[in-house]
Amino acid sequence: MPQTVHKKNGLPPGSLVYVGEPPTSKTVIRHIRYSQNEMTIEEVATPEQCVLDPGWNHWIQCIGVHDPAVLEGFRKHFGIHPLALEDVMNTEHRPKLEHFPDSLFLVCKWLGFNEDRSLSDNHISLIMQNDVLLTFQEGGRDIFTPLHARLAKPSSRLRQRDLDYLVYSLLDTVVDSYFSLMETLGQHIEDIEEQILNSPDRDIRLTLQNMRASTLRIRRIVWPLREILSDLLRDPRETFQDEVHSYLRDVYDHVIQSIDMLDIHRDMLASLFDLHLSGVSLRMNQIMQMLTLVATIFIPLSFVAGVYGMNFEYMPELGWEWGYFAVLLSMGGLAGVMLWVFKRRGWW
Amino acid sequence: MPQTVHKKNGLPPGSLVYVGEPPTSKTVIRHIRYSQNEMTIEEVATPEQCVLDPGWNHWIQCIGVHDPAVLEGFRKHFGIHPLALEDVMNTEHRPKLEHFPDSLFLVCKWLGFNEDRSLSDNHISLIMQNDVLLTFQEGGRDIFTPLHARLAKPSSRLRQRDLDYLVYSLLDTVVDSYFSLMETLGQHIEDIEEQILNSPDRDIRLTLQNMRASTLRIRRIVWPLREILSDLLRDPRETFQDEVHSYLRDVYDHVIQSIDMLDIHRDMLASLFDLHLSGVSLRMNQIMQMLTLVATIFIPLSFVAGVYGMNFEYMPELGWEWGYFAVLLSMGGLAGVMLWVFKRRGWW
Amino acid sequence: MPQTVHKKNGLPPGSLVYVGEPPTSKTVIRHIRYSQNEMTIEEVATPEQCVLDPGWNHWIQCIGVHDPAVLEGFRKHFGIHPLALEDVMNTEHRPKLEHFPDSLFLVCKWLGFNEDRSLSDNHISLIMQNDVLLTFQEGGRDIFTPLHARLAKPSSRLRQRDLDYLVYSLLDTVVDSYFSLMETLGQHIEDIEEQILNSPDRDIRLTLQNMRASTLRIRRIVWPLREILSDLLRDPRETFQDEVHSYLRDVYDHVIQSIDMLDIHRDMLASLFDLHLSGVSLRMNQIMQMLTLVATIFIPLSFVAGVYGMNFEYMPELGWEWGYFAVLLSMGGLAGVMLWVFKRRGWW
Amino acid sequence: MPQTVHKKNGLPPGSLVYVGEPPTSKTVIRHIRYSQNEMTIEEVATPEQCVLDPGWNHWIQCIGVHDPAVLEGFRKHFGIHPLALEDVMNTEHRPKLEHFPDSLFLVCKWLGFNEDRSLSDNHISLIMQNDVLLTFQEGGRDIFTPLHARLAKPSSRLRQRDLDYLVYSLLDTVVDSYFSLMETLGQHIEDIEEQILNSPDRDIRLTLQNMRASTLRIRRIVWPLREILSDLLRDPRETFQDEVHSYLRDVYDHVIQSIDMLDIHRDMLASLFDLHLSGVSLRMNQIMQMLTLVATIFIPLSFVAGVYGMNFEYMPELGWEWGYFAVLLSMGGLAGVMLWVFKRRGWW
Amino acid sequence: MPQTVHKKNGLPPGSLVYVGEPPTSKTVIRHIRYSQNEMTIEEVATPEQCVLDPGWNHWIQCIGVHDPAVLEGFRKHFGIHPLALEDVMNTEHRPKLEHFPDSLFLVCKWLGFNEDRSLSDNHISLIMQNDVLLTFQEGGRDIFTPLHARLAKPSSRLRQRDLDYLVYSLLDTVVDSYFSLMETLGQHIEDIEEQILNSPDRDIRLTLQNMRASTLRIRRIVWPLREILSDLLRDPRETFQDEVHSYLRDVYDHVIQSIDMLDIHRDMLASLFDLHLSGVSLRMNQIMQMLTLVATIFIPLSFVAGVYGMNFEYMPELGWEWGYFAVLLSMGGLAGVMLWVFKRRGWW
Ligand SMILES: [Mg+2]
Ligand SMILES: [Mg+2]
Ligand SMILES: [Mg+2]
Ligand SMILES: [Mg+2]
Ligand SMILES: [Mg+2]
Ligand SMILES: [Mg+2]
Ligand SMILES: [Mg+2]
Ligand SMILES: [Mg+2]
Ligand SMILES: [Mg+2]
Ligand SMILES: [Mg+2]
Ligand SMILES: [Mg+2]
Ligand SMILES: [Mg+2]
Ligand SMILES: [Mg+2]
Ligand SMILES: [Mg+2]
Ligand SMILES: [Mg+2]
Ligand SMILES: [Mg+2]
Ligand SMILES: [Mg+2]
Ligand SMILES: [Mg+2]
Ligand SMILES: [Mg+2]
Ligand SMILES: [Mg+2]
Ligand SMILES: [Mg+2]
Ligand SMILES: [Mg+2]
Ligand SMILES: [Mg+2]
Ligand SMILES: [Mg+2]
Ligand SMILES: [Mg+2]
Ligand SMILES: [Mg+2]
Ligand SMILES: [Mg+2]
Ligand SMILES: [Mg+2]
Ligand SMILES: [Mg+2]
Ligand SMILES: [Mg+2]
Ligand SMILES: [Mg+2]
Repeated sequence: MPQTVHKKNGLPPGSLVYVGEPPTSKTVIRHIRYSQNEMTIEEVATPEQCVLDPGWNHWIQCIGVHDPAVLEGFRKHFGIHPLALEDVMNTEHRPKLEHFPDSLFLVCKWLGFNEDRSLSDNHISLIMQNDVLLTFQEGGRDIFTPLHARLAKPSSRLRQRDLDYLVYSLLDTVVDSYFSLMETLGQHIEDIEEQILNSPDRDIRLTLQNMRASTLRIRRIVWPLREILSDLLRDPRETFQDEVHSYLRDVYDHVIQSIDMLDIHRDMLASLFDLHLSGVSLRMNQIMQMLTLVATIFIPLSFVAGVYGMNFEYMPELGWEWGYFAVLLSMGGLAGVMLWVFKRRGWW
Repeated sequence: MPQTVHKKNGLPPGSLVYVGEPPTSKTVIRHIRYSQNEMTIEEVATPEQCVLDPGWNHWIQCIGVHDPAVLEGFRKHFGIHPLALEDVMNTEHRPKLEHFPDSLFLVCKWLGFNEDRSLSDNHISLIMQNDVLLTFQEGGRDIFTPLHARLAKPSSRLRQRDLDYLVYSLLDTVVDSYFSLMETLGQHIEDIEEQILNSPDRDIRLTLQNMRASTLRIRRIVWPLREILSDLLRDPRETFQDEVHSYLRDVYDHVIQSIDMLDIHRDMLASLFDLHLSGVSLRMNQIMQMLTLVATIFIPLSFVAGVYGMNFEYMPELGWEWGYFAVLLSMGGLAGVMLWVFKRRGWW
Repeated sequence: MPQTVHKKNGLPPGSLVYVGEPPTSKTVIRHIRYSQNEMTIEEVATPEQCVLDPGWNHWIQCIGVHDPAVLEGFRKHFGIHPLALEDVMNTEHRPKLEHFPDSLFLVCKWLGFNEDRSLSDNHISLIMQNDVLLTFQEGGRDIFTPLHARLAKPSSRLRQRDLDYLVYSLLDTVVDSYFSLMETLGQHIEDIEEQILNSPDRDIRLTLQNMRASTLRIRRIVWPLREILSDLLRDPRETFQDEVHSYLRDVYDHVIQSIDMLDIHRDMLASLFDLHLSGVSLRMNQIMQMLTLVATIFIPLSFVAGVYGMNFEYMPELGWEWGYFAVLLSMGGLAGVMLWVFKRRGWW
Repeated sequence: MPQTVHKKNGLPPGSLVYVGEPPTSKTVIRHIRYSQNEMTIEEVATPEQCVLDPGWNHWIQCIGVHDPAVLEGFRKHFGIHPLALEDVMNTEHRPKLEHFPDSLFLVCKWLGFNEDRSLSDNHISLIMQNDVLLTFQEGGRDIFTPLHARLAKPSSRLRQRDLDYLVYSLLDTVVDSYFSLMETLGQHIEDIEEQILNSPDRDIRLTLQNMRASTLRIRRIVWPLREILSDLLRDPRETFQDEVHSYLRDVYDHVIQSIDMLDIHRDMLASLFDLHLSGVSLRMNQIMQMLTLVATIFIPLSFVAGVYGMNFEYMPELGWEWGYFAVLLSMGGLAGVMLWVFKRRGWW
Repeated sequence: MPQTVHKKNGLPPGSLVYVGEPPTSKTVIRHIRYSQNEMTIEEVATPEQCVLDPGWNHWIQCIGVHDPAVLEGFRKHFGIHPLALEDVMNTEHRPKLEHFPDSLFLVCKWLGFNEDRSLSDNHISLIMQNDVLLTFQEGGRDIFTPLHARLAKPSSRLRQRDLDYLVYSLLDTVVDSYFSLMETLGQHIEDIEEQILNSPDRDIRLTLQNMRASTLRIRRIVWPLREILSDLLRDPRETFQDEVHSYLRDVYDHVIQSIDMLDIHRDMLASLFDLHLSGVSLRMNQIMQMLTLVATIFIPLSFVAGVYGMNFEYMPELGWEWGYFAVLLSMGGLAGVMLWVFKRRGWW
């Protein structure tokens, strides 16, 4: 949940304020140049050091978005709109697509689970200009590293094609994270289901509540991407070449499949609470049955014993030789009858 | 629930990875040729052995989609788009319709219940090119066998018409499986309802939870087919001839009817949980009534007995000749009054 | 719930299979001819005996749809599309409207309650050709008889106008059945509400469950008719003359009003379950209060009696002359205080 | 809930049947003529007595719609469509707008609460012809009287403008009734909320159920008016002059605001049931705590007393001089420990 | 909840009636003039004192909307439509956008929480004419003060641009209040969640109910603003210059983000009630377990003691030397066995 958005209240628009957890690492900037023949990766200290020689595709990767000075450098060197840059730093911003006159601006989020089953996201921003693709992400996890290897292979489709195919590949990587997430989520739900069915214990309440909060957040992150992709597919500007459209449709399919899985998980999760409540009720029933069984059998018997414990001077039964045994016998008989009645009613 | 989709993460698009349960049988490939005059069925070892002589309708059936080598053969021999082939192998993919420049690609799922009332699906893919229809399905159950017999009869409509009518017939077979499924589902629900009303026992919780999961999965499989069919009916490309449109509308009707039935079943299922909880409550009520009845009658009586069991030296009643019998009588009277009160309040 | 739809699985489309309860009567075919001057009703044995002399409006009524031979006769004599005829026999088919090149095909359902408050429907099919209206319905109840009398009166609007006004009148009759149904449903709901409020008993569960199932089915039958009528009103083909449009809009209004009433009934029904559960809880509360009252008063008193029933040799109180009466008095006082506390807490 | 709609079943369309509660007063007909210079109000006995001299705006008010003879008079004198007149008498008809070739027909409902908090509605019909506005309403309450005074003032906007402004003013009066209704409803809900929080008693169930029924009915009456007004605002026919459009939009705003308030009230009402159930549970908890407290303290103590009440010949403690006091002391200690444990667990 | 809207019933439209809490301060009117070179702020006594010299942007701020005389002054001096002015005073009016021929009229609401966690709103109205912007707000909190400082800086974008950018800045300030609100709301929810999990106490019911009411009201205030902004963005009139569109889209983004957060909060809030109920059930379970444990162990033991407290003359065990110790031992054994059974069932 965004806790620090209010930092921005009252500031003029376009103010560069980092909203998010305190950064744990320095900003890394990578300049990746590639054409069909060649590909180089270079780590640079400031955005200004990226030389955009023509004839190449340029992918500038910025890992870590907490430093206003660095982002200001990007703004100047690449001519980015201040409102776009503001959203790059606002790691609580929802996924969105915006067309600026000379560039396309896309925000989405990579998703994963932490060890403690809390949700972890990484705020990703893409700015696609003519021959330059800028990507910004939070530090910590180097999400797009597998693409470096694919880019290094001259035979790979990434090298054969233009920047639009690289954008597709980045989106595909992001959406793939949703699939892993859904599988883990499904596994969590099955674990909880098992716990609920086997041991109705109290901790489940907090777990369910946190899972519910997670699915709500995931939903707010995945749904907008669906719309973004559907907008890209219908976009009249020729940002994506015709052959790349099939690939975008494939990512779109995957987002819809993720949403389908999420909705199933949400439904199952909702029903887990009922399951849990019903387990509590059934257990209460069992306990009450035991109490009722013991109490309804022994309370009448104790009464009988109490009667013969009275100190009246004239109580004929007390003098009978077999009185004691007769009473014990009838008590046993009474208990037997009651047990038989309870058995028949299925209480035992 | 897809458990193995992550296998595909990080791979370039179009990678052929089988996602699903381990295959239990070898891939079977059948080449069915037919015209108005003749029809042949031939089992072939590899896709390359299918000779597509003109003037015939060709239906190539591939049963078993786990072997990348076989599918790669299809791709080369029939020029299938790699992304389509990827979806053919991904048995967790949702139903979809895609128009490639020279072919129509349709994914749907046959549905049935296993013996243990778990859901069983079969991932079906259709690729319709000019004179060739390719169908892919998971191994195990030979779903489309009844159509072979109908194709063998020269008088059948299948022989009189073109490949588009065969596509319709395949879809009809798939949708027919939904009807059987809905009937079985309705039967299951009535069984559970009866169980709940007659014997409030604990196992119902797991059963209801599993049924709920099944209906959620069915919904995700049947709904997209509705849209696919409605797209086919409005399709401006003349993939289906005018006379076949009536037949497609008929399948469309059946899908809607299936959805109607599913929605009714889902609603009933949702109310079964309430029914179950209410049964538990009513039972608790009964148990508590019994306990209250016994306890409120005997606890005061025991108190009276306790009083006369006290050892005070001066307790006049103890010396009375008829004291014992008087106490017994008043105890009986007290019990009678309480029973009468409870009876009047309807507790007994 | 359709139990026998699977009968049709695997058959080629257009197969005439009766789906429904076993018919209890023979098929009746009536040929009604009318013009502004004259009107005749004739019962015929086979469809072929209907002579369609020009200049008249012809209404052919077929009561009973279980006999494939009779329907096959209709198909041949009137040139009906096999898929339409299949839906005529499939009494579980949902309401629908279909335009064939030379005819309009409409399916809807008459609804009523049986004596045992179960839902009873009658599957109605209308096929409107140029000067001929064919109506098919299940046997048993002669729904459209009142129209015969109105047709017999030369001054009636039915006689003044064309077949389109007759179609309107038939639809009006069907929709009128929904109004009666809604009133009965409302009455049932008020009855149950009263039962729940006055006597929380167990049978209500089954009744509520069945009512819920009924309203779900009704909803699936009435909603499509709304769409059908709205389609007819916007239909560019001039099937209905301008003056009849006002009448169709009137039926449309009535369908919407039915849906409104149904939705209110469904909401009330849903809340009845809560009402019932809450009644069970309140009752439990009462029972527990009684138990708690009796137990918390007498258990301490019994303890006191138990203390003075101990057999210690040295217990000074036992020797006191007024010890017994002092104990009785303090017991009474203790009970009084507890009753007063409970009273003040409103438990009594 | 409409109880008598079935009266109309089987009748030909346009049959004038009064549907509603038995009328308590005679029909009143008022003929109000006005122009910028003059205004007259006249009560007439029959519709035929209304002389429609040109150059004036004519508002004919009919209060009481139960008398078919009177309405038949209106039909003949003003040329009203029989289907419109049928809806005028059907006081259960939902709000609707219909355009007849020469007139506009609008049905809506005035709403209020009776003393016993049950809903009271008044079925209003407007027929707007060229220079004549006919309004029909149920008898009893003279809703539109305040407008007479405003019409009497020559300076009022009603006099300055045409009949369309009068129609707006009538609608405004109707919608104003919804605002009062919502305020009263909100007050009712706060009353119930307070009752639930302060005294969990049983009557609340019936009250909540009746409120729920009322809000459902209100919703069905207010929602259609929203659509009616939005239709009037987009109507291409120039029924309303441009300056009156601002006023219509104002009423439209008010309807939306009413719907907003109703939705809030409905949500609050729904949550009141939960509130009530939770109160019942909390109370049960309290009762059980009391029982548990008393029972778990005294049952073990009674056991100890019972042990020393046994009649064994050899029980050494009985002979000890301080045995009795030792036992009393240890009982007191045991009780103290248990109370301390319960206190710590917060049960007391 | 609007409590005083009925004040307006029966009045002609455009009547200026203040609806809201009694005002606590006098109306303040500020005349702010600015151009790229200069800026002045002046407090004036009446609207008529605002001189609108050309070549300047004029922002007239009216703080306090309870005085009809003041508003009447505005109407005359600036030619405002009476219906607009009516909505300015009606502080319960929902947010709306209306285009008058020569001006744009926008209503929205600033939102905050009071100290007691109740919702506080401020009804804001904007009237944008050619070179004049009129803003009206309720008294008490001076919401737009931060903008004065930004306007005072000659280098600020506010000074560089026209009135449309000022309108944007006002809307941005309003929407920023929603962000703060959402954060506070989220904090409240987490507090309650903690309370529920740690101490199931009764007060939570009222708190939850009030929070629910607040979120319902917020929803009704924020949702319309979304539509208003989307209308402004698609508006064909050139009210906002092209460069300001990016900024409006930014506010639009923020409104959507607020709605997302609100929906998450509402979902969490809904589940808190379940959490609370489940806590009550679990606690009940614990209490019943304690009662059952004590009762089922001691009731049988007491029975045994009762048996040996009977006064029969012939009870052989009573004479045995070790009888007493044997009985004590078997009682201890019995208790031990029962404890072991309960332990194994996890009741202890
Ligand atoms: Mg901003
Ligand atoms: Mg984050
Ligand atoms: Mg992917
Ligand atoms: Mg938390
Ligand atoms: Mg959504
Ligand atoms: Mg794919
Ligand atoms: Mg892929
Ligand atoms: Mg599978
Ligand atoms: Mg079929
Ligand atoms: Mg499972
Ligand atoms: Mg859906
Ligand atoms: Mg059909
Ligand atoms: Mg068929
Ligand atoms: Mg039937
Ligand atoms: Mg009717
Ligand atoms: Mg049943
Ligand atoms: Mg619907
Ligand atoms: Mg009507
Ligand atoms: Mg009628
Ligand atoms: Mg009425
Ligand atoms: Mg009004
Ligand atoms: Mg009632
Ligand atoms: Mg609605
Ligand atoms: Mg207004
Ligand atoms: Mg519930
Ligand atoms: Mg007004
Ligand atoms: Mg206010
Ligand atoms: Mg902002
Ligand atoms: Mg309140
Ligand atoms: Mg909404
Ligand atoms: Mg932004």
